[in-house]
Amino acid sequence: MLIIGEKINGSRPDVAKAIAERDAKAIQAFAVKQAEAGSDWLDINAGTPPDQEPDDLVWLVEKVQTAVDIPLCLDSANPEALAAALKATVRTPMINSISGEPDRLRQILPMVSKYGCLVIALLLDNKGIPKTAVTRLDVARKIIQRTRSAGIPDASVYVDPLTLTLASESTGGKVILETMNAIRQEFPNVNLCVGLSNISYGFPHRSYINRVFLSLALYAGLDAAILDPLDRELRITLLAVEAFLGRDKFGVKYIRSLRAG
Amino acid sequence: MLIIGEKINGSRPDVAKAIAERDAKAIQAFAVKQAEAGSDWLDINAGTPPDQEPDDLVWLVEKVQTAVDIPLCLDSANPEALAAALKATVRTPMINSISGEPDRLRQILPMVSKYGCLVIALLLDNKGIPKTAVTRLDVARKIIQRTRSAGIPDASVYVDPLTLTLASESTGGKVILETMNAIRQEFPNVNLCVGLSNISYGFPHRSYINRVFLSLALYAGLDAAILDPLDRELRITLLAVEAFLGRDKFGVKYIRSLRAG
Repeated sequence: MLIIGEKINGSRPDVAKAIAERDAKAIQAFAVKQAEAGSDWLDINAGTPPDQEPDDLVWLVEKVQTAVDIPLCLDSANPEALAAALKATVRTPMINSISGEPDRLRQILPMVSKYGCLVIALLLDNKGIPKTAVTRLDVARKIIQRTRSAGIPDASVYVDPLTLTLASESTGGKVILETMNAIRQEFPNVNLCVGLSNISYGFPHRSYINRVFLSLALYAGLDAAILDPLDRELRITLLAVEAFLGRDKFGVKYIRSLRAG
Repeated sequence: MLIIGEKINGSRPDVAKAIAERDAKAIQAFAVKQAEAGSDWLDINAGTPPDQEPDDLVWLVEKVQTAVDIPLCLDSANPEALAAALKATVRTPMINSISGEPDRLRQILPMVSKYGCLVIALLLDNKGIPKTAVTRLDVARKIIQRTRSAGIPDASVYVDPLTLTLASESTGGKVILETMNAIRQEFPNVNLCVGLSNISYGFPHRSYINRVFLSLALYAGLDAAILDPLDRELRITLLAVEAFLGRDKFGVKYIRSLRAG
């Protein structure tokens, strides 16, 4: 499973401050730490107002990619910010994200095609986030029809079934797993991706809920997750799931990693 | 899910010592601690040689049931020990266990019928533990045919698909989940039960593997588990899974338990 490090996100006060002050060292430290902790990709989210976001996203991209040699996941719904950041990336990035919203598809899909990017597709449309697995699958069908028409191979698409917090939607976990199973069946070459942290918003000791989500999502065939790679417990859980499901033969990787601390 | 506390087991040196020295206080302390930690049942395993086991099991039963008011799970394959212990129990116990072995079925099933017990059925027969889910399901069919003939309702049967350690059988986790799914489908009223600790034998930091096993088994419909109720991380995982799967609405129980420490 691919780990997409979530820490460089302007919604975090320390990141927002580093962006505002153009503190490259602080941003690069977040990047290096996450890469060292095993991230395969780094999510880059400026989280600033639309008119400022293109500059901020480009600055983040430039600073991060001089510090680490892993690819970036450009996290924005702003076509101008994405267009500018795409020109600045040295490794083909992932775009986070498109959705079933017509404007977003129209504006962002051409960039995905042009640059041959991977792309995260959120299962929501103009009416919001569908409540059930059946209605989310409908959104997935609509999006995948569009990505295929744009010549984007299914293997470049990472569908995110979207996680609502359990505090507002008790059945949220079940709906996500059902959606993942349905997509896996109907679109075997499309990848499954989740943002791990939302689910536990408002709960105490959130990491326990996140670990359970990771375990069950991996069993359902998860291919990538946006998560906190510095959460040691979560990383051990990932290793434990892979050992349990026979994807890490005789737990060799689990045992080696745990013994190495 | 029912928690069957695993600690009173003669294979543990401290328990063996307490049995040998007839140290009732030590045994009762294990019982009280497990009951306080939320056990629904207590497994009672003397683990002593066959000629000594009836006396030891009866002594354990008598001492434990004066200390706690939860029912006992009589853990023995020795018909004499079970017969003696059954007479000593004040609450209808669970018997752990029958299997597909003809002798065991012939000797133990009549006791299950007579006392109206719940019973754990291990999916092994004279040829040992079957390798695949398909062959384990065959053993389950054989056993359930016998329990039904003996007038034991499916709801009293707890099938244990048997967990081999991942260190010897990498695909063990997958086979267990497949077996559970197959049994759930073919015998909807039969319960599913696992012993949680075996899977991680030989691994460092075993609790991580056990927690993943618990998470995935609960998703597959686990009804009972023999586990260490004093493992706090495991208990939080149980609460987190139930919140995630919408079985604990809005995580009320999870939040209350975690806030209470």
